[in-house]
Amino acid sequence: MYTIGVDDIEDLALGAVVLGAGGGGDPHVAMLMLRQAIEKCGPVSVVHPDSLDPDAAVFPIAMVGAPTVVVEKFPNGCEFEIVLRSLSQRLGVSPSAVVALESGGLNALFPLVVAAELGLPCVDSDGMRRAFPRLEQTLFTLGGVSSTPIAMADVYGNCVSFDCIDNAMSERFVRSSVTEMGMNAVIASYPMSGRQCADYGATGSLKYALELGRRIRAIRDGVPKALKTFLDFADAHVVFTGTVTDLIRNTTDGWARAVATLEHLEDPTRLMTIQIQNENLIAFEGDRAVVTVPDLISMIDIETATPMTTESLRYGQRVHVLALPAAERWLLPDGLELAGPRAFGYNLDYVPFGVHA
Amino acid sequence: MYTIGVDDIEDLALGAVVLGAGGGGDPHVAMLMLRQAIEKCGPVSVVHPDSLDPDAAVFPIAMVGAPTVVVEKFPNGCEFEIVLRSLSQRLGVSPSAVVALESGGLNALFPLVVAAELGLPCVDSDGMRRAFPRLEQTLFTLGGVSSTPIAMADVYGNCVSFDCIDNAMSERFVRSSVTEMGMNAVIASYPMSGRQCADYGATGSLKYALELGRRIRAIRDGVPKALKTFLDFADAHVVFTGTVTDLIRNTTDGWARAVATLEHLEDPTRLMTIQIQNENLIAFEGDRAVVTVPDLISMIDIETATPMTTESLRYGQRVHVLALPAAERWLLPDGLELAGPRAFGYNLDYVPFGVHA
Repeated sequence: MYTIGVDDIEDLALGAVVLGAGGGGDPHVAMLMLRQAIEKCGPVSVVHPDSLDPDAAVFPIAMVGAPTVVVEKFPNGCEFEIVLRSLSQRLGVSPSAVVALESGGLNALFPLVVAAELGLPCVDSDGMRRAFPRLEQTLFTLGGVSSTPIAMADVYGNCVSFDCIDNAMSERFVRSSVTEMGMNAVIASYPMSGRQCADYGATGSLKYALELGRRIRAIRDGVPKALKTFLDFADAHVVFTGTVTDLIRNTTDGWARAVATLEHLEDPTRLMTIQIQNENLIAFEGDRAVVTVPDLISMIDIETATPMTTESLRYGQRVHVLALPAAERWLLPDGLELAGPRAFGYNLDYVPFGVHA
Repeated sequence: MYTIGVDDIEDLALGAVVLGAGGGGDPHVAMLMLRQAIEKCGPVSVVHPDSLDPDAAVFPIAMVGAPTVVVEKFPNGCEFEIVLRSLSQRLGVSPSAVVALESGGLNALFPLVVAAELGLPCVDSDGMRRAFPRLEQTLFTLGGVSSTPIAMADVYGNCVSFDCIDNAMSERFVRSSVTEMGMNAVIASYPMSGRQCADYGATGSLKYALELGRRIRAIRDGVPKALKTFLDFADAHVVFTGTVTDLIRNTTDGWARAVATLEHLEDPTRLMTIQIQNENLIAFEGDRAVVTVPDLISMIDIETATPMTTESLRYGQRVHVLALPAAERWLLPDGLELAGPRAFGYNLDYVPFGVHA
């Protein structure tokens, strides 16, 4: 067990944006909420999944909707009390701990806010070890855990709960209700036992985000060889270093789609295009897929080492394109079926990065 | 107390289409389901709301979605067990009786199916004494009853429940979820006490539908003066008798909008246009509003006396346009605000029919 205090928030947020792979939302608001919650309620206890009672009730928590909305429409804090109460009533059991549904972007921090406010421990795990756009794209789904019952509440006090026949249906219901909720809601989903959380979750992902963040900060602070230290720690590659020369954004079918084009800093004939659907999904150099989902494609600013969300990326920016390995479980056939390139509509198989390098 | 047996089904369906005012859906499938349920489980007990225990739990039941879908996508009967179980669990109480949410179209019959199958009495009442398109357009809303908690289930076994801050929000959530359910779902909504049902519901509306239906059948069977008998019983008027010369259908914003134009049978210079949004809402002769919502505009075929739903109306058909009075409670200011012409976007006040006749 360890604790997350106010001094950890910045590192955690830096790591969370890397794990967001461009998506998951800017954690700025979640950082403010977490600071306030820790100052009010004290540091958050983080427990290892193996230390959970196998029968303990663990509730994964996330914010859903459009991350851009969260920045302007602050959660008011009543939502997570409503969802936890609703789900507890539905199941006849109160949660022993909460856990992140995804560890990318704001959702890496938000469950800690809930844990602090409600005096619950947060499990050092999550359902993705990155961010994915769809609710069913979790390691929990791969473990056979139902995403329902789900409780979902908005800032106004509306609460919806779902019991669905499969996790893909849940995603559809959640998506249609979040539209009525103004594109911003809190959910508790995939209620599970301590044993399920230990068996299927991405054990250690909170610590991992924190460590990634510390090493990003070292790059920013000009510590010698900090980029190499980061890459070695994360088993990551810099697959391209270039300038954003084109950025086409296009919101269709509820997806924030975009294509970013980068020109290599040292060789202007080399171009990289990054296909984005909420998250950075595939990086092509020419017509060769260099990095493919579920591996992570994250960009950091060359000068400041700031990890970039899709929304914050801008024309003319000079970035390193990083490839980080997905949690290994994603690379089994069912994992790739749920979250590989074809799950996002690309006629393309998963390619491990670095094999052509 | 009285019972509804198989011999009542046809009359009830005829009356229900009249009370549907063009909407509420063709009751054909509900007739088949009700016949099967009664043959299997026996006649349905119908209780007067005043005979209910004031503290009894009464669950209003309805099908929601697109009535045209119900005809092709038969409910399988598991939906209402799921919704009643879900709502009972949520409230910690089982229903003593069910009641119709609306008494127009298929929803006049469907609660009787549920009552028969589950061995519950059905209350002789409903929330509208007609059909309206929106869930919040009920006499229960006027009585201050919350439409939530709502339980809603589909043919696949998905179940969603809602706790909303007001009845207009519930409508929005139900509408977005029914889309994911393939435009056809069963809901239990406005759970209430026996006293609330007696105080706010349209007491006697089931009997009323049955009596309207019997008199429609008499017209069809050529009983002398049967139309006059119908009109006298219902306090109704024939406001126009003509041929459908134009019928423009237009599904926009989730509404089945249409405008029907009729040419008077005896005076071709007289034209009536009927504005339709799921239900027949306003009948104009020239630019004069002759009948306005919440009063009922129902058409019956001249030759067969068949009451017409909007879907079944066709070019060249010769019809009587009937005006029937709404339940009086709808004519108070809050009733007209919820279900008068302006509630449907018309820049027009309610006009009692017959005042210019």
